[in-house]
Amino acid sequence: EPDEKIQTMLNQQFHYVLKRFTPALQRALPSLPPVDFFWRIHFLVGSMAHTMADSERLRSISSGLCDPDDTEGTIRRLVTFLNAGLKAKAD
Amino acid sequence: EPDEKIQTMLNQQFHYVLKRFTPALQRALPSLPPVDFFWRIHFLVGSMAHTMADSERLRSISSGLCDPDDTEGTIRRLVTFLNAGLKAKAD
Repeated sequence: EPDEKIQTMLNQQFHYVLKRFTPALQRALPSLPPVDFFWRIHFLVGSMAHTMADSERLRSISSGLCDPDDTEGTIRRLVTFLNAGLKAKAD
Repeated sequence: EPDEKIQTMLNQQFHYVLKRFTPALQRALPSLPPVDFFWRIHFLVGSMAHTMADSERLRSISSGLCDPDDTEGTIRRLVTFLNAGLKAKAD
């Protein structure tokens, strides 16, 4: 299945990118306990990988409302969502 | 690859669950434009599927800080993250 190959490739790419970006993200979230930080990075990777690998299905789920070809809109919405999730107060 | 089979199975399960939960989630987020609502559900599915299919890797990425076997802790952290992401003001 191409989707699965893409998923694997994306995961490898994300691992490399995260190794570079993790220190900067940790500096941006200094009050978040490290255990919560890593969990949130994990959730973030899930959202990003799913968005890059499998957004075409969203077109039908949303009855055509969502356009996965709208890259700028997708990134803007993803950033809004992840920004709020990353900044949430840990319980 | 077992992970890919699990991923496919989870996606099918999520599709069924989302068909049942989408109306309730939409009622809980009445001010969110539908296009943003569907995108956020998509991001949510990514985080959930990735967490259920692929959390063992997180143990090594976090140098053992995160315990994917801690189901209660995982759910609590996922809910905190998704709750904030879903409720973010759409730009």
